[in-house]
Amino acid sequence: MSERPRRTFTSDNVTAAAPEMLEALAAANTGPVPSYGADPYTERLTSRAREVFECELAIVPVTTGTAANALALATLVPPYGGIYCHETAHVMTDECGAPEFYSGGAKLLGLPGEGGKIAAEQVAEAVAFARAMGVHHVQPAAVTLSQATEWGTVYRLGELDALCATAHRHGLPVHMDGARFANALACLGCSPAEATWKRGVDALSLGATKNGALAAEAVVLFDPALAPALELRRKRGGHLWSKMRYLSAQLLAYLDADLWLRHARHANALATRLASGLATLGGSLVAPVDANEVFVTLPAALIAGLRADGYDFYDWPAPRGHAGPVIRLVTAYDMSPADIEALLAAARARAAG
Amino acid sequence: MSERPRRTFTSDNVTAAAPEMLEALAAANTGPVPSYGADPYTERLTSRAREVFECELAIVPVTTGTAANALALATLVPPYGGIYCHETAHVMTDECGAPEFYSGGAKLLGLPGEGGKIAAEQVAEAVAFARAMGVHHVQPAAVTLSQATEWGTVYRLGELDALCATAHRHGLPVHMDGARFANALACLGCSPAEATWKRGVDALSLGATKNGALAAEAVVLFDPALAPALELRRKRGGHLWSKMRYLSAQLLAYLDADLWLRHARHANALATRLASGLATLGGSLVAPVDANEVFVTLPAALIAGLRADGYDFYDWPAPRGHAGPVIRLVTAYDMSPADIEALLAAARARAAG
Amino acid sequence: MSERPRRTFTSDNVTAAAPEMLEALAAANTGPVPSYGADPYTERLTSRAREVFECELAIVPVTTGTAANALALATLVPPYGGIYCHETAHVMTDECGAPEFYSGGAKLLGLPGEGGKIAAEQVAEAVAFARAMGVHHVQPAAVTLSQATEWGTVYRLGELDALCATAHRHGLPVHMDGARFANALACLGCSPAEATWKRGVDALSLGATKNGALAAEAVVLFDPALAPALELRRKRGGHLWSKMRYLSAQLLAYLDADLWLRHARHANALATRLASGLATLGGSLVAPVDANEVFVTLPAALIAGLRADGYDFYDWPAPRGHAGPVIRLVTAYDMSPADIEALLAAARARAAG
Amino acid sequence: MSERPRRTFTSDNVTAAAPEMLEALAAANTGPVPSYGADPYTERLTSRAREVFECELAIVPVTTGTAANALALATLVPPYGGIYCHETAHVMTDECGAPEFYSGGAKLLGLPGEGGKIAAEQVAEAVAFARAMGVHHVQPAAVTLSQATEWGTVYRLGELDALCATAHRHGLPVHMDGARFANALACLGCSPAEATWKRGVDALSLGATKNGALAAEAVVLFDPALAPALELRRKRGGHLWSKMRYLSAQLLAYLDADLWLRHARHANALATRLASGLATLGGSLVAPVDANEVFVTLPAALIAGLRADGYDFYDWPAPRGHAGPVIRLVTAYDMSPADIEALLAAARARAAG
Repeated sequence: MSERPRRTFTSDNVTAAAPEMLEALAAANTGPVPSYGADPYTERLTSRAREVFECELAIVPVTTGTAANALALATLVPPYGGIYCHETAHVMTDECGAPEFYSGGAKLLGLPGEGGKIAAEQVAEAVAFARAMGVHHVQPAAVTLSQATEWGTVYRLGELDALCATAHRHGLPVHMDGARFANALACLGCSPAEATWKRGVDALSLGATKNGALAAEAVVLFDPALAPALELRRKRGGHLWSKMRYLSAQLLAYLDADLWLRHARHANALATRLASGLATLGGSLVAPVDANEVFVTLPAALIAGLRADGYDFYDWPAPRGHAGPVIRLVTAYDMSPADIEALLAAARARAAG
Repeated sequence: MSERPRRTFTSDNVTAAAPEMLEALAAANTGPVPSYGADPYTERLTSRAREVFECELAIVPVTTGTAANALALATLVPPYGGIYCHETAHVMTDECGAPEFYSGGAKLLGLPGEGGKIAAEQVAEAVAFARAMGVHHVQPAAVTLSQATEWGTVYRLGELDALCATAHRHGLPVHMDGARFANALACLGCSPAEATWKRGVDALSLGATKNGALAAEAVVLFDPALAPALELRRKRGGHLWSKMRYLSAQLLAYLDADLWLRHARHANALATRLASGLATLGGSLVAPVDANEVFVTLPAALIAGLRADGYDFYDWPAPRGHAGPVIRLVTAYDMSPADIEALLAAARARAAG
Repeated sequence: MSERPRRTFTSDNVTAAAPEMLEALAAANTGPVPSYGADPYTERLTSRAREVFECELAIVPVTTGTAANALALATLVPPYGGIYCHETAHVMTDECGAPEFYSGGAKLLGLPGEGGKIAAEQVAEAVAFARAMGVHHVQPAAVTLSQATEWGTVYRLGELDALCATAHRHGLPVHMDGARFANALACLGCSPAEATWKRGVDALSLGATKNGALAAEAVVLFDPALAPALELRRKRGGHLWSKMRYLSAQLLAYLDADLWLRHARHANALATRLASGLATLGGSLVAPVDANEVFVTLPAALIAGLRADGYDFYDWPAPRGHAGPVIRLVTAYDMSPADIEALLAAARARAAG
Repeated sequence: MSERPRRTFTSDNVTAAAPEMLEALAAANTGPVPSYGADPYTERLTSRAREVFECELAIVPVTTGTAANALALATLVPPYGGIYCHETAHVMTDECGAPEFYSGGAKLLGLPGEGGKIAAEQVAEAVAFARAMGVHHVQPAAVTLSQATEWGTVYRLGELDALCATAHRHGLPVHMDGARFANALACLGCSPAEATWKRGVDALSLGATKNGALAAEAVVLFDPALAPALELRRKRGGHLWSKMRYLSAQLLAYLDADLWLRHARHANALATRLASGLATLGGSLVAPVDANEVFVTLPAALIAGLRADGYDFYDWPAPRGHAGPVIRLVTAYDMSPADIEALLAAARARAAG
């Protein structure tokens, strides 16, 4: 399965787990412990998360990002609620309707926006429309943001401030889909607290799988009072592990010794290098490379050439008003600078040829 | 966390994972592989399951037994369907409404019955009632059986034949909740095929977590044509692992070299020994001990004494028509005969004292 | 369609509408009025209901009793909630899973009880069990009572006091299924307020269809703050009439000049007469006849004889511990004393024959 | 409530009921008849609908258009299905998520398009995208069209042919939201059969309320085999009237003696006259006036003037790429030509002033 140099740039979810993860599983694998989260690992996880985010919170581990998003949103909104998101958000297009399912039919309302971002004014306008429609329209219930976004960009603190303030002014809680939250945090260079609840974020889907875990995500609730409802929904959704220790142990290892940030900084740096290298070959970036994803337009012949060289990556639908063809290249915690240089060398050779 | 001798008899889900499981994870932890089940481990799992069950089938890995049951039932029944089960079934009382949630509000209809079993005639009568009620009542849609049952008994092949024949005569598919299927199989001494589809079982929730895995269950569909619908529901339920290899690898290890049956036979034998030992101390079994659970009435002083000695187990609601107090003792793959003898010795000492 | 004497005793929902209802529709049929409830009839209905119930309230008209019950319960409970009811409650057996559907999969938990009634202690025990089960079981969320009950009995004020106090002590709102509320009120002889919110009832499904309307029911919320949520659910359920005036006009006519109580007293009196007449012919009542339904065991030959004479009524499943055969005879607002005497005469003739 | 001349142009759902409707109710108001649709009126309705549509079919009466749409779609699609519609469709924006609720969370996927119409190629492209996304995206499940559309236009037979052929090629059934089906039919001038199943329409929401009924709509299923599932969903949705005769009687009167078409032709002709009159005053139509709705841009001063004269109508969001301000004027079966001329005279006076 291994490959030298690495030629798979399809996604960060094709990666193996970090050695620290398997070590954590092994360390937790000793004798019986109480099931369903009443184990010491899960208890420790809560303490650790409170240190990391510098506040009271509840952290609820689950297996997938889809589960984290759907459970968080279902806890925040009624079934007759409307959830504002970017029209290309993962919750909108890539989760087979999980938020609708978990919420009992709430409606995701997609808004357009450059670089995968939505703006405070768009939310305000959409809320005004819905309120005017009254009982005939789903009523405004939440805002969900992807951080990093689906286009590899990262909302800046001021953008988050504006969005959260607008949402809260209209009584809407703010959820953040942080499947790549560590990458966003590495970009922002601020503390986890500054990137979330200090801006007004109410609930965070904290991803670890793409950044080194086997399968571990969590919903972080900055209002711990919401935890009982979310935990009942988790059980009901079949997401409560009986042997919860193996989920919590991964998350502990993730937050421990800044593993998450080291991984994310590494992947981000590789993406930045990759983007600047491709720019010298005529690549045109679709959006700034803030995290570990590069969306780039390249000559069709060059794209075909890279594939002929064994490189694997996805074609991507060009955003509105952007000519294609667009490809997506994703870097990951387990790639090396040499992997990037090898790709760039191959691209240069193809471009020259 | 460890303990010698083991004094925790609360459940088989408090156990650590078998060493074979961690080895399987480590072996799968090499470089990138395609995500979402398009990996070689998942492919191999399907082949292996077909060998084990000697038929065409689809096997869909998930994380928890609740997810397996709810996804299987939701695939089999419409939202206006009625699902016949024992009134104490796990789906009825222990899954926080997961089957109702996944199915869109289908109704579990609990039937009474000795030893956790329902009988073919009960299903026939309930179906007749529902059909007579017409559109006012949820319409018969499926039968679900726990094998082993919630009372540690095991349906015999003839009982399964009768139930499946009655169900099919009325157009109802049969689902088997096999959270402890290996224990049932060890009791029956027949092949997996003989215990399931040869009897008429249409879908099986195959448990591995209680019997050695970290977190691994699967829905086995004996009609593979149902797989696409179930897979969409799995994604939508947030149960599709991106790094599926780590789930499939556990299930492969489970089915490999009869690990599942060795574990189950071991736990069953310990339960049998435990039951017979307690019988000599005045214990009265609530139901035959077919698998790895002992439901037993003991003198209240003896129960208190064992707890004073550090033993941990659950009080259990006595079944209809049975005087209590009832306790449940569960054996597991990772207990030793010495653990059982130690408990019996403690009980003898308390009984003598 | 007409018949003299009337021989249909199957249900009070086979009746035509009272003349007052058609007159009310005609009176409302003049020119355009605002749609969706912003009309003067609906406004007047709210005022009238407040007078009748002597309190602030919201009244939300719908078309069917099933809709009223399901919408009320869905507004009161979360999807992971358990709803305590009698095991023979209409919501449990006759609504094809509507409460489960509207609530997103909440679970009706049926309790046994004589004469269709549940008792405060049963609720307390069931709550204690569910709380002990924690996240594995649906959590206690509401109590729903049928008044009159499914067995034609009526909860007395003291019984309601005890049930509501217990429910509230555990944080559970109380819903009353009043498909035959007028009949219960006529039995109790107290004011609507004394029969409901003064006892602790939080929401009432107020039926009119069985008692003279074409199709008109309403949810009465004694906490008007719940109305916006219920109204959104009503729209979403397709139960918001655009020409709401025709629904409100029926309910206005129903409450006007005590039409509802006159109808109910009349039907109740006929049922009492019917029951006492049948008792003299060897009929054994299954439950006291408090309202307009008679559940009675009669000799099989007599039952067959009445049917041979053209009488129509339902066989009914005998309650636990009661030998059959049981039939149900329902009286209605549009029957005459002569209809009852004719049935009794026919029965006497058959009994004598 | 009455007004001479009529100045309310907000909607056709503010109208009173036609006299024929009240007469039909009165005629049906004689003695007991079997409940829940086993009455002669409902039986006759089915026969009549088969004559009208010249085919086998099932017709399932309900109270509102939202209920008809949601029940029809829920019967056609799985919860993980995607439903293609125009982005301004009533199901998308005006039903508070009813289709999502009834279907268990299926997703409406809005497509843009001139005049409220979608085209076959758009459906083909959207299906290709969804299929390529696989399990991550809701899977194509149905197409729903509004006929007449939300912009008062009517799909021509050739447009319907193309859409239905494309949908069926991809295995998708076609639903038609016919809240104003009679108006569309009056425009097309063809038979009901030619406008529906002969084009490939699988299910029709047939509206009567806006065109003269009190509250009566129906789902017409051209595949009667779907009826049992839809009828169970209707019961479960609380939409099964016990006194069904009063719903069926309205629909019988509607289809009788071409009442529906006479009403629709009348309203359409008034709209055409209104549009041409406004055009001479500088009104710019947003879309062709095919049915009984006029969407028109008028000078702001003229709009304000009409309102000052007591005229009532809605401002409407301008469609993409269209400058506003847009207002909507709706004609109805109970308006007279004099009402239109009065409005035009008022407009002329304001324009001149």
